[in-house]
Amino acid sequence: MELEFLGTGAGMPSKGRNTSSLALKLYEERGTIWLFDCGEATQHQILRTAIKPRKIEKIFITHLHGDHIFGLPGLLSSRSFLGGEEPTPLTLYGPSGLKGWVHFTLELTKTHLNYPIRFVEIEEGIIFEDEQFIVKAKELEHVIPCYGFRIEQKPLPGELYIEKALKLGVPKGPMLGKLKNGEDVVLDNGTIVYSKEVTGPPKKGFVVTVLGDTTYCRKSIELSKDADVVIHEATFDHATANLAKDYGHSTNVEAAKMAKEAGAKYLILNHLSARFLPHDIEKLLKEAKQVFPNVFVAHDFSKFHWKNGKLNELYF
Amino acid sequence: MELEFLGTGAGMPSKGRNTSSLALKLYEERGTIWLFDCGEATQHQILRTAIKPRKIEKIFITHLHGDHIFGLPGLLSSRSFLGGEEPTPLTLYGPSGLKGWVHFTLELTKTHLNYPIRFVEIEEGIIFEDEQFIVKAKELEHVIPCYGFRIEQKPLPGELYIEKALKLGVPKGPMLGKLKNGEDVVLDNGTIVYSKEVTGPPKKGFVVTVLGDTTYCRKSIELSKDADVVIHEATFDHATANLAKDYGHSTNVEAAKMAKEAGAKYLILNHLSARFLPHDIEKLLKEAKQVFPNVFVAHDFSKFHWKNGKLNELYF
Ligand SMILES: [Zn+2]
Ligand SMILES: [Zn+2]
Repeated sequence: MELEFLGTGAGMPSKGRNTSSLALKLYEERGTIWLFDCGEATQHQILRTAIKPRKIEKIFITHLHGDHIFGLPGLLSSRSFLGGEEPTPLTLYGPSGLKGWVHFTLELTKTHLNYPIRFVEIEEGIIFEDEQFIVKAKELEHVIPCYGFRIEQKPLPGELYIEKALKLGVPKGPMLGKLKNGEDVVLDNGTIVYSKEVTGPPKKGFVVTVLGDTTYCRKSIELSKDADVVIHEATFDHATANLAKDYGHSTNVEAAKMAKEAGAKYLILNHLSARFLPHDIEKLLKEAKQVFPNVFVAHDFSKFHWKNGKLNELYF
Repeated sequence: MELEFLGTGAGMPSKGRNTSSLALKLYEERGTIWLFDCGEATQHQILRTAIKPRKIEKIFITHLHGDHIFGLPGLLSSRSFLGGEEPTPLTLYGPSGLKGWVHFTLELTKTHLNYPIRFVEIEEGIIFEDEQFIVKAKELEHVIPCYGFRIEQKPLPGELYIEKALKLGVPKGPMLGKLKNGEDVVLDNGTIVYSKEVTGPPKKGFVVTVLGDTTYCRKSIELSKDADVVIHEATFDHATANLAKDYGHSTNVEAAKMAKEAGAKYLILNHLSARFLPHDIEKLLKEAKQVFPNVFVAHDFSKFHWKNGKLNELYF
């Protein structure tokens, strides 16, 4: 799992930060990418990365402010026109109203997509589940309906004790794979070998929580409970905290407090105001660190890799 | 008058060319900018120029394809949020359907602008006129309704013969300005001095023709008749001419032929496919030059300055 930030600014694009978009790259897990929000020029940012729009399987929209959706029609359209492999169906999760706007916009511009879009109108609770993942949504506290998402990877098969399996007569080959994935197998001589005989306990999957714009609130904490990585906005800093609440936003320190109370492992701050200069960002990070040590500030094109229970920022 | 190209690509953004937008800078003439088309990330391109969104007085939309309008909601919104001087009212000229989409989009995203927008639905004929300019529109030939615009600057006051005016008893000061601008004045002693006594013949204003996506057609020629500068698409080149007509587009050579038949002075090609590599562009320019010598190919951020009847490309 890897996180690549495509836009980390608040409200308007600036030279340094584009409006919101975040790619959750699940190449190893399922060969696809999930996108969270799609501010204007997200497709332009993608042009500067290795991301292929056709690999995007799902787009989650936290809320219907322009800085989170104005890039959607262009991305959907280019995903269709770009050559390459057959485009996969796409699922769009968004608040009520998104579907109508996307349809209206594609219709107006006579944009005919060469792949189907499935729309899921977000309500609190489980909005997606398959054998690998479960995604839960809760409504946060912003000036308009805005959601946060908790992405839980289901437990992974435990370690396969190969020596033990071979000793029980399992031949090298596909049967070993089946056993590792939890299936029991029947040997040529009729013996049944049970998966749980030859595998260790299942491994815990990761939990990533992506929160939309919000003030410090209880539901953020619930969504972030024991999460491995929490992505939280920091539109304001401690010095401008009085403004945060008025505009339905949070400060760096509130985000850190939230992550601490939730017992999260790592926190990444995004959605930063263009007002902040580089030394403000340093200060903002320092302030948050005093409350919650495992914190990062995202920049456009920041990448974070999750491996063996640790989050590492990748530098180039 | 200056032309600054903000996006010169066709269909989709590429690393080298953004989707369509062109700024006609009328700083000297009226202190404002007129924009033609507004592809996604036009506001991002503007961030890299000296253009102030609040100086944009009019936006003309040639047609409702996404690569010509997806940047509009973001630009309108940022024009409101950006600090600085009081924003001026804005007039949007577009084909039927534009107003509904802009209203729907601003409403959906709860975007409240701090300036009024006036919508003018384009029909063939004069779509704007004041004491300085007259703008005429005609429908071109594209796969959806698409317009071209002829911007005519009205004749400018002729040269003021100062010596002659002083000799007639006009005092130095504001009366000279009035005479230059065509007003007659009454001296303290009751004598009337007529403007035409002390000024030369009016000077011809410039004519700029901005054409939307189109095949080679008669109305392009009518709009470009004796124009000083014509901006014309060249989505295809001579080698791919058979495709041009099918998709409602033109080649470089067709654009050049059109400019020649219209008796235009200068031609600038834009709306180029991302397929074209630098050496293709050179070839494309050469081919066009054989038909119409005064031709340029626009790149993103290309600037052209109009002065004393000549168009000069500005290099930095
Ligand atoms: Zn936001
Ligand atoms: Zn076009």
